[in-house]
Amino acid sequence: MNHEPMSNPSEDDGAQVLEADLKSLEAELAAQKDVYLRLAADFDNFRKRTAQEIERRAAAQKDAFIRELLPIIDNLERALSANSSSPEQLREGVQMTLQQLHQLLRRHGIEPEESRGQPFDPHRQEAVSTRHDPSEPDHAVLETFQRGYRRGNEVIRPAKVVVNNLSHAR
Amino acid sequence: MNHEPMSNPSEDDGAQVLEADLKSLEAELAAQKDVYLRLAADFDNFRKRTAQEIERRAAAQKDAFIRELLPIIDNLERALSANSSSPEQLREGVQMTLQQLHQLLRRHGIEPEESRGQPFDPHRQEAVSTRHDPSEPDHAVLETFQRGYRRGNEVIRPAKVVVNNLSHAR
Repeated sequence: MNHEPMSNPSEDDGAQVLEADLKSLEAELAAQKDVYLRLAADFDNFRKRTAQEIERRAAAQKDAFIRELLPIIDNLERALSANSSSPEQLREGVQMTLQQLHQLLRRHGIEPEESRGQPFDPHRQEAVSTRHDPSEPDHAVLETFQRGYRRGNEVIRPAKVVVNNLSHAR
Repeated sequence: MNHEPMSNPSEDDGAQVLEADLKSLEAELAAQKDVYLRLAADFDNFRKRTAQEIERRAAAQKDAFIRELLPIIDNLERALSANSSSPEQLREGVQMTLQQLHQLLRRHGIEPEESRGQPFDPHRQEAVSTRHDPSEPDHAVLETFQRGYRRGNEVIRPAKVVVNNLSHAR
């Protein structure tokens, strides 16, 4: 240590303590800035990887579904290409394909809805028209134009239905 | 400012400057720690949201594909349910459904491969057996058991083929 000749030792010590504090604070601040910058860089990388990961995972899940669909398309092609097959055989082949399509949807949690005879439910059904049928309850679904599909309580596609309307005689 | 009676004014000023520096450094360090903690909290939230977001987006993309598949299933059901239709009408209806399935795949970037007559390519084809056909080039694909599908250069499903083998006469 380099004591200046005229300085009061206690004050000089005080100044040295202060300067040491200052140095250690500066070092701490530099370290703190450093961890901040490293965290910011990590965050940035994570964000970039995430954007790619979201695309990759979404495509992978869709492609997995498509890979399950391909054998069903094969079967439909086979049913058609068997030119020597009888109309009954074609019909059977197509029926089987249709069952496989419904099994595929079911494996992915999607079930068709049975709407006919149910009370009309605007959350699951879209009324494309009404009819007057006194033999059925008011607001009952009389006919399904397009089948509805759902996963649990989530509507994947609403059914398109004809609804009974007894309030206005036609 | 509170000057102590016995202190040398210039040294006292020096100490005060040091203490002021210390105070401002301490404030800066506290602020720096604060932005670090906020960034860490943001990062943490982002990570949590991301995990959910990946699942949500993946499911959404698959469901969008399934929604496009449903009208094709409707058409296949319609073709079958038209009991009065002739075998030719059923065949036409099924053929149309098949075209729609291929259009759906194409919209999602997936094309069937034409393997017949091509030179065997182990990256895109799986040889399920070989045959000896002197009228065709060696290693040519003689027959396709299962059609291959690709998206650009990515193989979605390899074709299963019979390959010509002229090196061993049978």
